[in-house]
Amino acid sequence: MSTVGKPITCQAAVAYEAAKPLVVEEIVVDPPKAHEVRIKIINTAVCHTDAYTLSGVDPEGLFPCVLGHEGSGIVESVGDNVTTVKPGDHVVALYTAECGKCKFCLSGKTNLCGSVRATQGKGVMPDGTPRFHNKKGEPLYHFMGCSTFSEYTVVADVSVVAIDPTAPLDSVCLLGCGVTTGYGAAIKTANVQKGDTVAVFGAGTVGLSVVQGAKSRGASKIIVVDINNDKKEWSAEFGATDFVNPSELPEGQDIVSKLVEMTDGGLDFTFDCTGNVNVMRDALEACHKGWGQSIIIGVAAAGKEISTRPFQLVTGRVWKGSAFGGIKGRSEMGGLIKDYQNGSLKVDEFITNRRPFVEINDAFEELHHGNCLRTVLSFK
Amino acid sequence: MSTVGKPITCQAAVAYEAAKPLVVEEIVVDPPKAHEVRIKIINTAVCHTDAYTLSGVDPEGLFPCVLGHEGSGIVESVGDNVTTVKPGDHVVALYTAECGKCKFCLSGKTNLCGSVRATQGKGVMPDGTPRFHNKKGEPLYHFMGCSTFSEYTVVADVSVVAIDPTAPLDSVCLLGCGVTTGYGAAIKTANVQKGDTVAVFGAGTVGLSVVQGAKSRGASKIIVVDINNDKKEWSAEFGATDFVNPSELPEGQDIVSKLVEMTDGGLDFTFDCTGNVNVMRDALEACHKGWGQSIIIGVAAAGKEISTRPFQLVTGRVWKGSAFGGIKGRSEMGGLIKDYQNGSLKVDEFITNRRPFVEINDAFEELHHGNCLRTVLSFK
Ligand SMILES: NC(=O)c1ccc[n+]([C@@H]2O[C@H](COP(=O)([O-])OP(=O)(O)OC[C@H]3O[C@@H](n4cnc5c(N)ncnc54)[C@H](O)[C@@H]3O)[C@@H](O)[C@H]2O)c1
Ligand SMILES: NC(=O)c1ccc[n+]([C@@H]2O[C@H](COP(=O)([O-])OP(=O)(O)OC[C@H]3O[C@@H](n4cnc5c(N)ncnc54)[C@H](O)[C@@H]3O)[C@@H](O)[C@H]2O)c1
Ligand SMILES: [Zn+2]
Ligand SMILES: [Zn+2]
Ligand SMILES: [Zn+2]
Ligand SMILES: [Zn+2]
Repeated sequence: MSTVGKPITCQAAVAYEAAKPLVVEEIVVDPPKAHEVRIKIINTAVCHTDAYTLSGVDPEGLFPCVLGHEGSGIVESVGDNVTTVKPGDHVVALYTAECGKCKFCLSGKTNLCGSVRATQGKGVMPDGTPRFHNKKGEPLYHFMGCSTFSEYTVVADVSVVAIDPTAPLDSVCLLGCGVTTGYGAAIKTANVQKGDTVAVFGAGTVGLSVVQGAKSRGASKIIVVDINNDKKEWSAEFGATDFVNPSELPEGQDIVSKLVEMTDGGLDFTFDCTGNVNVMRDALEACHKGWGQSIIIGVAAAGKEISTRPFQLVTGRVWKGSAFGGIKGRSEMGGLIKDYQNGSLKVDEFITNRRPFVEINDAFEELHHGNCLRTVLSFK
Repeated sequence: MSTVGKPITCQAAVAYEAAKPLVVEEIVVDPPKAHEVRIKIINTAVCHTDAYTLSGVDPEGLFPCVLGHEGSGIVESVGDNVTTVKPGDHVVALYTAECGKCKFCLSGKTNLCGSVRATQGKGVMPDGTPRFHNKKGEPLYHFMGCSTFSEYTVVADVSVVAIDPTAPLDSVCLLGCGVTTGYGAAIKTANVQKGDTVAVFGAGTVGLSVVQGAKSRGASKIIVVDINNDKKEWSAEFGATDFVNPSELPEGQDIVSKLVEMTDGGLDFTFDCTGNVNVMRDALEACHKGWGQSIIIGVAAAGKEISTRPFQLVTGRVWKGSAFGGIKGRSEMGGLIKDYQNGSLKVDEFITNRRPFVEINDAFEELHHGNCLRTVLSFK
């Protein structure tokens, strides 16, 4: 019997309270309204942003909610006026929407889109209401316009992209956040060129994806900086030429002077993939005078600020940031999937753990282990 | 009788001590060594950087020294191996050298040059010694590779550019710093395009030159922000479309929200021309999400730092700086002189006061008056 137009009762992991485990239970997912898409999620991974919001320190976190934003699936049904995807399409959910029509999309200068921003930040669909409620009838907030921790979810039609159905959903879910964020930051935001020198602070999924982006561009030196020595081997595997553990430098040497020494004056590009504001400063100051650019990808804890002497910028360093790697999800996901399929973009290599969806709280646990990159959860 | 190869005794203003008036007296200027040029200075203006160093708060200030870096003159003689200028050439002194051969000059990415940097910062010529001493025989330090507060000065051959001899020296001296710095920051560092919106914080010579650069590019809105209402008329004259005095905003409104409101989301480009680190932050945060770029030109007091939440950058704002407007002095001064001569670059309009050189201490006084832009001093 078709589910089209009807509420669906299905399994989800609900975040009822900050800093508490998710509750795996059945919830009700309403049918999509106009310009909305209901997706049967097949796979989802857990990212640090989910953990950040769940921890309660995210000042914009709303509870109870359905977290998750690295997810892939198949379109179950669409609301009125949806032209971009159709039932049966294989899709990746997009926390960075792309409407193609707003001031941002038309600017040609950014991948941020203004179309659903206000309501997405409030945990509701564009009409101001959620599509989720629990069995007691209590509404549940959406998260980052995705909410992939549910077997079915509803997203705006601008927040989903159809992909080549031959691409394995249990890998490409990672293109919904971590891999795309790092790879895009290197090849789009920074636009690393052949021969450039690059330093990547933090070798998680994001940082290692920066490494592979820099490698694909032919960077001459790719230095990974991480306080966890377990990351040395990972870094080499993804293409890093050097690894430095800043906590093991000789007395009196700091990471900035070490990197400046290793590169005869500083890096062409540095990337913060840690979220630590002190690291962000080091990353900027390790840039080469005259042209070095530092790109902030990490998400800092609430209230934290970055600082430096303005002279660092007056003498030619540039401080930038990158969200979702500067990638326009609907226009550019197809290219990333192709890069993955032809072997030039590593994705499977990030999957250190696989679990059935019901073990989602274990996946949150694993996130904090040094040797876990991504845990991919499956609904069946 | 020719002075070539001999020391010249001439008038200069010596800074013997921080925060004391300059001493106008005769000093001795040695002949230029290899790769050096002795210039008869005809005109010099006083810039805030001179006042900053004289005040004693510049941690790199060295005394006694001959200040001055906005100067024009005529080459008196050259040392061995000087090929770029010859005696009789009209010239502008360059505190940002251009050797054309170092890593920086060859990068194609910056106007900073490494050739004479180390010794310039130490107040000496590239061989490690000064060419100035007073009548008691005490050596006097050089300043910013220029020392234009002397009737004769010696500079490195990479720190001077020959100009069209029909250009009036008593105007184009301003191209040695303030005007070039602001104009270049707009047309080179920022590369403002037709239709862009621009905000300029601080309407001194530098800020007003940013205004004219933005205007020459066809910016659609040029908002000047200054705490001194006397700058409103000046701003309009140089091409600003709006003027905002941040100290006169209604209770509860800050300058960032005011500017965001005036521009439907923020500026394409903002420029700090005040040197105040709080203004630098406002300038960044008034940029449009997704693409707005803020350029720091002002020189902050020693030890001051800029700060912001990293989210400002992650959501697409870019923080940059500019030194000497990103202009390569030897390659690009000719173009600026042409712009001036054909009327597209205002220079004379900045000259609010003219004085004989002996009145230099009055020129330092005037610098702090709201309605003075530049005082041009003449040696005869
Ligand atoms: N801007 C975006 O669009 C975007 C998207 C996704 C994730 N993020 C952020 O990117 C960051 C990285 O994500 P991830 O999934 O790769 O995280 P991760 O936790 O897997 O990796 C972080 C790495 O940084 C290292 N590290 C921590 N402190 C360090 C220090 N002081 N010096 C050097 N290394 C240090 C850790 O050892 C770890 O290897 C997070 O802050 C995340 O929130 C941003
Ligand atoms: N980066 C470079 O290469 C370079 C070169 C030359 C000068 N500079 C620096 O540029 C700055 C400007 O130089 P100038 O000669 O135009 O100086 P100026 O003193 O003539 O002008 C500064 C203007 O800023 C205004 N102002 C001060 N505080 C303000 C505030 N809080 N908000 C708004 N406006 C404020 C003042 O009223 C004044 O009109 C100085 O810091 C100078 O050292 C930098
Ligand atoms: Zn994520
Ligand atoms: Zn849009
Ligand atoms: Zn100056
Ligand atoms: Zn050079």
